Amino acid sequence: NINGDRLWDSLMEMAKIGKTAKDGVCRLALTDLDRESRDLFIKWCKDEGCSIRIDKMGNIFARREGKNPDLPPIVAGSHLDSQPTGGKYDGVYGVLSGLEVIRTLNDAKYETEAPVEVVCWTNEEGSRFAPAMVSSGVFAKVFDLGYGHSRADIDGKTMGEELKRIGYMGDDEATIDAHPMGAYFEAHIEQGPILEDEGMDIGIVTDAQGQRWYEITLTGVEAHAGPTPMTSRKDALLGAARIIELVNKIGLDRGPLACATVGMMQIHPNSRNVIPGRVFLTVDFRHPDDAVLADMDAVLRKGVEDIKSGIGLECEFEQIFYYAPVPFDPSCVDAVRKGAERGGYKAREIVSGAGHDACYLAQVTPTAMIFIPCVDGISHNEIEEVHKHWSDAGGQVLLDAVLAKADE
Amino acid sequence: NINGDRLWDSLMEMAKIGKTAKDGVCRLALTDLDRESRDLFIKWCKDEGCSIRIDKMGNIFARREGKNPDLPPIVAGSHLDSQPTGGKYDGVYGVLSGLEVIRTLNDAKYETEAPVEVVCWTNEEGSRFAPAMVSSGVFAKVFDLGYGHSRADIDGKTMGEELKRIGYMGDDEATIDAHPMGAYFEAHIEQGPILEDEGMDIGIVTDAQGQRWYEITLTGVEAHAGPTPMTSRKDALLGAARIIELVNKIGLDRGPLACATVGMMQIHPNSRNVIPGRVFLTVDFRHPDDAVLADMDAVLRKGVEDIKSGIGLECEFEQIFYYAPVPFDPSCVDAVRKGAERGGYKAREIVSGAGHDACYLAQVTPTAMIFIPCVDGISHNEIEEVHKHWSDAGGQVLLDAVLAKADE
Ligand SMILES: NC(=O)NCCC(=O)O
Ligand SMILES: NC(=O)NCCC(=O)O
Repeated sequence: NINGDRLWDSLMEMAKIGKTAKDGVCRLALTDLDRESRDLFIKWCKDEGCSIRIDKMGNIFARREGKNPDLPPIVAGSHLDSQPTGGKYDGVYGVLSGLEVIRTLNDAKYETEAPVEVVCWTNEEGSRFAPAMVSSGVFAKVFDLGYGHSRADIDGKTMGEELKRIGYMGDDEATIDAHPMGAYFEAHIEQGPILEDEGMDIGIVTDAQGQRWYEITLTGVEAHAGPTPMTSRKDALLGAARIIELVNKIGLDRGPLACATVGMMQIHPNSRNVIPGRVFLTVDFRHPDDAVLADMDAVLRKGVEDIKSGIGLECEFEQIFYYAPVPFDPSCVDAVRKGAERGGYKAREIVSGAGHDACYLAQVTPTAMIFIPCVDGISHNEIEEVHKHWSDAGGQVLLDAVLAKADE
Repeated sequence: NINGDRLWDSLMEMAKIGKTAKDGVCRLALTDLDRESRDLFIKWCKDEGCSIRIDKMGNIFARREGKNPDLPPIVAGSHLDSQPTGGKYDGVYGVLSGLEVIRTLNDAKYETEAPVEVVCWTNEEGSRFAPAMVSSGVFAKVFDLGYGHSRADIDGKTMGEELKRIGYMGDDEATIDAHPMGAYFEAHIEQGPILEDEGMDIGIVTDAQGQRWYEITLTGVEAHAGPTPMTSRKDALLGAARIIELVNKIGLDRGPLACATVGMMQIHPNSRNVIPGRVFLTVDFRHPDDAVLADMDAVLRKGVEDIKSGIGLECEFEQIFYYAPVPFDPSCVDAVRKGAERGGYKAREIVSGAGHDACYLAQVTPTAMIFIPCVDGISHNEIEEVHKHWSDAGGQVLLDAVLAKADE
């Protein structure tokens, strides 16, 4: 059995890095704080006798050898980067419960058949660098390395530059070919309200919904807010406001499973008495049914076209990220289900509303996910919270699932 | 007669300080670039033998003595700060045409009865520090000194701190009582299309429209854009979008003289996959009729209330700036009219759509303004442009108006 106290203590220790005033975490990808969290993770892994490999996307693999080193490893993990106002568990929980699996195996001096590895993926959040899950995407050959390195933040700094700067540009090729796996498991907080509402401890994740992300830049004419008549304005912010309303309607009109969000906007020149001449905004669409997602896409494109012509704006429109709904591997899902049964936890099947590194891994290796509830379903918020008995349960199920596959 | 080439050369020289890639100017109030422009202005004034006084709001007065030093000075001026994407003329034209008046008087070795002064007011734009015209407002006793010093930029730096930092916190009391004036004239670009459309060289400004500025902060709940159902969201950005649409409608519904603008917005946490939990936005209302302005205010308050309750947001709402429509002084307006006639310029009466330091000065001393056209009526934009013969005309009319009052 895992040591739930030790897992919890490690979570709290890691949460000190980038701790915010409201007891959340701000640890954006590839910042100095991200480096600190990586250094601590590697130190803990080395304390357990693990060997470390780092690939060209900065993904970190810590390996505990098996009886049969030629077997591909069974891998558990997630990410250590956070949202600007993130919490203590999103991502970190998957990495540290993976480490707890290795610690538990060491305590028990248990030798698995296949090697067991813990992985930390770079820039899962997609907040500092879009899109999300870019480094597991490169690993799963959805993106090439050049694309991964060229992702730039709002100041134009690229992932390639920042990986070098913080010393985490490794030597390994960042693909599954250079690093085959027997299976991949990711434990994560649900980030939605279902498990808690139904009094469940464990979510057996069968699928993840599809996503489409967009970048839209509207250009009008900036001019003085005083002497410029309303009828001769080309106000880029008015266009953006109409797109926000449209996106909201697209989400609402498609039933309880659709989500549609404008999360980010930049206004230029952003001065009180200047009609905004340029606005950049992002759109995030989600649905478990790929056909519905395609329909949302079509309605958005048509609507944006109408809005821009209505005001007389120029418009750049780009879909920068898409993946279809992902079904997880039945035998891995089954390993999770059996783990939950063995532990006597209240569990149900669930579809992931968020994207995870597991969504890309699922395209190249047998994959499943374990959810634990989070309080009020809140995440991407400093008040994100988890009860310790949920954390214990998820770690235990992860151990059982990994062992099932490692000794298969 | 003024030397139009010299005035033009000085405008071009000043425009090098904070020059942008698109040939505009970014010289925000109390930055190092603002200091550079002040230093250059003072150097030029000293070259003309002027004495310099600086007050506690950083307003700079350069004085050319008159035959009768006990008479209150006739003052001309404007501001040297710019918008983030501003032009070469907005404000600067009024300061440097004032300087050209003094240069011309020196060339002619002409002694006026009353002293003549040129003034540069601090932070007219209201872009880095809101509200606009804050230092002429303190001077006119609309605001007190503590209020002026406490105005903070987006990073929390105050005008008081920044005045000290750039070395422009002077010793003089910043009020008309400590610095009485005989009259104040401000030459400025129109910042609207009327003069150019009608082929006029000079606008005789009779009035300025009233303004109301607001700050609104909407607070909802930030949460994950993926697993958070549309119906349980409290999206602060959706609220902001509805306010933008409302503000636009308030402007459009009130005829050609009303202006209504949302120019600035900050979104928190501004991450693509996070439902925005907090949005700050500004509203700028203008109308020449104070009653209409009051009605716009009432409709905004009611509308914001409805929008916030509709989504379940918290809302802070504050009117941070108000002044009633301003009539200028008939005898000063007349001095401008006579100057335009004497020069044989095509001129018409006009109401200012923008706020100017003159609007506050008008409350404490006889005041008028001279407008020159700007190309396509565009200002608060890097492409702001003026034809040289307009610049010549405005300088000449300013000289005549100042002389009329100084020798009265
Ligand atoms: N789990 C998580 O928050 N991932 C970020 C990518 C997404 O927005 O779904
Ligand atoms: N003239 C000018 O642009 N002043 C700034 C204040 C305003 O917005 O009216």
